[in-house]
Amino acid sequence: MDFIDLIIKKRNKETLTKEEINFFVQGVTNKTIPDYQISAMLMAICINSLNEQETSDLTVAMINSGKTLDLSSIDGFKIDKHSTGGVSDTTTLIVAPLVASLGLPVIKLSGRGLGHTGGTIDKLESIPGFNVNLSISEALEKVKEHNLVLMSQTEDLAPADKYMYALRDVTGTVESMPLIASSIMSKKIASGSDGIVLDIKCGKGAFMKNLNDAKILANEMIKIGQNLNKKVTAIITNMETPLGMNIGNSLEVIEAIEVLKGNLNGPLKEVSLAIGAQMLIMSNIAKDTNTALEMLNENINNKKALYKFEELIRSQGGNPAVIHNYSLFPQKIHKKTITSEKSGYVTEANAFLIGEAAFKTGAGRLTKDSKIDYGAGIMLKKQVGDKVEKNEILAIIFAEDSIKCENAGKLLKSAIKIENNPLPKKPLIYDIIK
Amino acid sequence: MDFIDLIIKKRNKETLTKEEINFFVQGVTNKTIPDYQISAMLMAICINSLNEQETSDLTVAMINSGKTLDLSSIDGFKIDKHSTGGVSDTTTLIVAPLVASLGLPVIKLSGRGLGHTGGTIDKLESIPGFNVNLSISEALEKVKEHNLVLMSQTEDLAPADKYMYALRDVTGTVESMPLIASSIMSKKIASGSDGIVLDIKCGKGAFMKNLNDAKILANEMIKIGQNLNKKVTAIITNMETPLGMNIGNSLEVIEAIEVLKGNLNGPLKEVSLAIGAQMLIMSNIAKDTNTALEMLNENINNKKALYKFEELIRSQGGNPAVIHNYSLFPQKIHKKTITSEKSGYVTEANAFLIGEAAFKTGAGRLTKDSKIDYGAGIMLKKQVGDKVEKNEILAIIFAEDSIKCENAGKLLKSAIKIENNPLPKKPLIYDIIK
Repeated sequence: MDFIDLIIKKRNKETLTKEEINFFVQGVTNKTIPDYQISAMLMAICINSLNEQETSDLTVAMINSGKTLDLSSIDGFKIDKHSTGGVSDTTTLIVAPLVASLGLPVIKLSGRGLGHTGGTIDKLESIPGFNVNLSISEALEKVKEHNLVLMSQTEDLAPADKYMYALRDVTGTVESMPLIASSIMSKKIASGSDGIVLDIKCGKGAFMKNLNDAKILANEMIKIGQNLNKKVTAIITNMETPLGMNIGNSLEVIEAIEVLKGNLNGPLKEVSLAIGAQMLIMSNIAKDTNTALEMLNENINNKKALYKFEELIRSQGGNPAVIHNYSLFPQKIHKKTITSEKSGYVTEANAFLIGEAAFKTGAGRLTKDSKIDYGAGIMLKKQVGDKVEKNEILAIIFAEDSIKCENAGKLLKSAIKIENNPLPKKPLIYDIIK
Repeated sequence: MDFIDLIIKKRNKETLTKEEINFFVQGVTNKTIPDYQISAMLMAICINSLNEQETSDLTVAMINSGKTLDLSSIDGFKIDKHSTGGVSDTTTLIVAPLVASLGLPVIKLSGRGLGHTGGTIDKLESIPGFNVNLSISEALEKVKEHNLVLMSQTEDLAPADKYMYALRDVTGTVESMPLIASSIMSKKIASGSDGIVLDIKCGKGAFMKNLNDAKILANEMIKIGQNLNKKVTAIITNMETPLGMNIGNSLEVIEAIEVLKGNLNGPLKEVSLAIGAQMLIMSNIAKDTNTALEMLNENINNKKALYKFEELIRSQGGNPAVIHNYSLFPQKIHKKTITSEKSGYVTEANAFLIGEAAFKTGAGRLTKDSKIDYGAGIMLKKQVGDKVEKNEILAIIFAEDSIKCENAGKLLKSAIKIENNPLPKKPLIYDIIK
């Protein structure tokens, strides 16, 4: 097989066979296809797309490009969750202990973040001592004992996807529904899940800017699931504005703990419960949404979810005292308070700009090798719809020096709009697709 | 400017500005854009195309990526010819001395061939002693004295085009009208021409397989010419069957000499005269086609064109005695004669397969570094429409060993069809577009 012929086929809008897709992915994995040919193929796919069968074949080929986790030794239905990424999205730290406390085994592999703030793994590492680097056998031991493991993705999981993603990122070929869908699904399925609940973020702070694209992506992933015999539920949620009030790594862990303590309501809790409910329904632990939500709320109120999170921290070597003493998290001396210049209502808190502001504090990383400042970030004091008085505090910025505080402050000011009258509220959960 | 943004623009079918195209071509030239990004852009262009302005801008940028020849010291209108390439296409060796003998200054830069046989430069090098490697100043000296120089393209002519072409060749992005058109035109204009007569080959042995594509390409190049103030005439000619009777390097030089001697009529001569006529008209040496053809025929009959070719060989260090003694060309001992298995009419002599057969004899090169066998090739004895008797000779194969002769023979047999009745003749010249 000559790879140039396959590129030309896709360029001419023809359909690639399973064998041809396997040849492509194996060539990527073994590095026998040069980057310039891979990127030409990726662009051809990006413009001319892949059909349902090609997308499933690509997903399977990427799963088979590396090792897959065998979770068969764990009893019960294994469900993973995945978020397409947004600002102040700490749902995993809330949902995972919640559903684990209700009997669902959770062995979740996550990535580090590139962008505004760190990913789940970075957030967990902001807990002093927390070890995310577990071997598969360690993870299996721990999940049997505690029903919950949160760990870093291993290097050998869908390596073809990893390589292609890096190349897509620098060749303008990220925005392709079948490529995005197969990339996510290959990693999740290689991680051993029987079912996946997807949180597809939609809005200014998300990769998907509009509801239509979010639905297309949801359906792409559901179709892959159908073809590969995996249950998939997609929840499409609002990401016009940050999901939580805190943006940063340890700041977001603290907010998650507050939700688990039952001290905090709002969008972050609401989306977390929506995801958790779908996980409980998928695994037949709950028969419907109302029952599921009751169970979840109960395990917040009775602190079982919080205790499960404490148990998780202890099990993975972290200091569980952080739960009751937030000063054990990395702290920043430099603070900057942003106040309102007028009275009125918050009509916009642009998730993208707030994310950029958080990045300026040092909470994110630009490249794989950048160092994250765990303590840096932003604490919003007002959210969209809130009434504010002149000079009232809108947000507090934390960073390692005052220059970073200033830079973040400029962006943050442009992100928050105060107007005389409130705007009608946008829905938080747009749709749930199965 | 971030090149990824430009790739995304073209991926999204947007138009690139002149500055953006310059940034692209400069990045290719300076090697500041990695190959995988160039190939992603080339695929986006290949699928989403370039408009007229973008194509002209790309052409100019590629011209400016290297040195350009200044032919202003030569009196008169400078006209180049270019063929898109076919089998047994020796028109340059006939047209160049012909029009030079009629007063048109010809300083023609050609490339080496990759494919079935060598290019014009390889054919000239099959003349013992002929030197194609001239400096620009040597070329200017010679053209002033002899009105005719045929030389190898210098390395620094449109280097961005050269680099992109090599990448297109291995990334399935050759078949793009604007890329093909700008590639050809950038080299021709960088060579200093005021006008260009294009011979666009169409058919089985050509890059353009159908007349429609050939016309689209012709119009692309004419539009570039209009935008860059260069006269362009495109002749679309039949390449279903080899243009001449000889396929190979020295074999084709010999056939050209036979035409110049007035010993040979047929398609090769006819197309050569058609190209020559357009060159004479474009330069106002002739007022119309009939006058031009009369002048060209006269300079064949009075041997002035042949003497000009002899003068060229002498001027560039070759042995002019080859003109009267073909045994001075590289010769092959091994011959194989292909005869007809039945009587009837030649209804097909498939240019592509005959080209492949010539390649098997050693007449072509696979990679830049392959060595060409100048003496190898095929001499057709019958052409489409000819009546043949059973056992009559159809062709003679020349190669350095009998295995090569055999291999070429098998392909050659499959290329020539004999049927009971002749087929209606296809036109040789499909169209002339200005």
